[in-house]
Amino acid sequence: MRWPASVTVCEVGPRDGFQMEPSFIPTPTKIAIIDLLSRTGLREIQATSFVRPTAVPQMRDAEEVMAGLRREHGVLYAGLVPNERGAERAIAAGCDRLDVVVSATDSHSLSNTRMPTRRALERVGRIVPMARAAGRDVAIGIAVALGCPFEGVPPYARVEALVGHAVEELGLTRVSLADTVGMANPRQVSTTVAALRARFPQVAFGLHLHNTRGMALANALAGLAGGVTHLDASVAGLGGCPFAPGAAGNVATEDLVHMLAEMGIATHVRLDALLEVARRVEAVVGHAASALLRAGVPRRFPLAQHPAGSPGP
Amino acid sequence: MRWPASVTVCEVGPRDGFQMEPSFIPTPTKIAIIDLLSRTGLREIQATSFVRPTAVPQMRDAEEVMAGLRREHGVLYAGLVPNERGAERAIAAGCDRLDVVVSATDSHSLSNTRMPTRRALERVGRIVPMARAAGRDVAIGIAVALGCPFEGVPPYARVEALVGHAVEELGLTRVSLADTVGMANPRQVSTTVAALRARFPQVAFGLHLHNTRGMALANALAGLAGGVTHLDASVAGLGGCPFAPGAAGNVATEDLVHMLAEMGIATHVRLDALLEVARRVEAVVGHAASALLRAGVPRRFPLAQHPAGSPGP
Repeated sequence: MRWPASVTVCEVGPRDGFQMEPSFIPTPTKIAIIDLLSRTGLREIQATSFVRPTAVPQMRDAEEVMAGLRREHGVLYAGLVPNERGAERAIAAGCDRLDVVVSATDSHSLSNTRMPTRRALERVGRIVPMARAAGRDVAIGIAVALGCPFEGVPPYARVEALVGHAVEELGLTRVSLADTVGMANPRQVSTTVAALRARFPQVAFGLHLHNTRGMALANALAGLAGGVTHLDASVAGLGGCPFAPGAAGNVATEDLVHMLAEMGIATHVRLDALLEVARRVEAVVGHAASALLRAGVPRRFPLAQHPAGSPGP
Repeated sequence: MRWPASVTVCEVGPRDGFQMEPSFIPTPTKIAIIDLLSRTGLREIQATSFVRPTAVPQMRDAEEVMAGLRREHGVLYAGLVPNERGAERAIAAGCDRLDVVVSATDSHSLSNTRMPTRRALERVGRIVPMARAAGRDVAIGIAVALGCPFEGVPPYARVEALVGHAVEELGLTRVSLADTVGMANPRQVSTTVAALRARFPQVAFGLHLHNTRGMALANALAGLAGGVTHLDASVAGLGGCPFAPGAAGNVATEDLVHMLAEMGIATHVRLDALLEVARRVEAVVGHAASALLRAGVPRRFPLAQHPAGSPGP
């Protein structure tokens, strides 16, 4: 197995995590957590979502959150953007990147956006030039690309066609494949990533993994061996999916960063600082799904002699 | 990444799991659970441990457990054997295989057996001919081979020397590398397994993984890609380690079997039957550490078209 020398971890807890919380998290608390995250070495933070406030009340303070942040040099602040109105708001609020999503299946697309995938993709086609005109990046996520609670694993040809449209029609170069409800397995991740990378060598592929069945780190590993360059994760393992009973949250950022650090794959994230934020987040929301929060980091020992170099930094 | 077509899962819950339980599990309950496990398609069960009853009171009924089992055709029943007295007892009790353990570090060996590794290995050297004379198999586990709570990751040369002694001096052909307290990472597993397989191509290597930091399935994956042929696991994720505060149990058998099934790697285990046993075990001991017990198995869908075959059965 071969691994990359480094990988970008994108923190999505302030969006994908917080939006699942039933009690409103006060805006200053959100800002404080994002500011702490931005000082851990993370390079990308999805800070909020510009959905209609009536649809997701937890995200009703998107503008205030963006305005209140203390921007850290070298950190990209992204906002999730479901439609043109959201794009206008995200641009006005100063998001560095607009994150758009289309579902790989019509069932999920209809459930999530009340329109089939084709129309959702057309909407993305109207958002991209808005972002470009304002000088902002765009990243696209393919929801349920690795498993849909209504339809199962979507046919590969459908995922490839979606990515093809995003890349060839819209000119996007950053694509995340989402295991939205935690159904994917490592072989599937491996074959899907390999096929997409062969077809679209110019694209930076990422994974958005939920840990519903405990496989998120194994799936991340399969993706890394296949050449993905970025991984979403959520501090304290927050998140979930309203359509998956028993679904766990995103892979916990601290668990992912710990594995990568132990493997010697650079993320630039300081694990001790990240764990402090995770503990704070757990205290704020009252729960967590994180192996490291439960078990702690093992004591450091002098490096042993491994057959192929050190086991990590 | 390449995966094997099949793998042997060895259920260690009745030993490694139960022995961590503070309340005595009645012998008929133990027997009932082992009998249920033996009807799930599992081919190997470590049923008990022939330690001194005063050392591990939970295992004081080892003979009764073995005598009470309803042996299933095609299932191997192993017993953990710490010393010659244990070997005599295991042979008399009808164990198909005697499982012996030595620690890769002296610190752990002293803590576990009150003798350094060298002396523990000499003891194994006396047990092996006893087993052979009685027509029983022997498998050796190298405790803390992938991480020691006192010394960190042992030098590879030490692990290789231990395996070399077991293989070349004692003639053993089945060796498990234990991540006793859950410190290993996938790169380390990958490089260690690759080096050992290159050095000892005649040996069937296995992994014994704890899920303390959530990496057990990722480590299993790295091991499978490196050619391990058997994996220990514990129903409901039972187990732990008295020397690792916050340590989780073994990888849950149902989580492992689920991942393998989704990947199309044959284990012959029926997941639905295994989940029933896991629920029963959870009810008996009052806890579990199992993603599948929490989330359930996703609904089955017709197979999608993957770029390289189906995602699994």
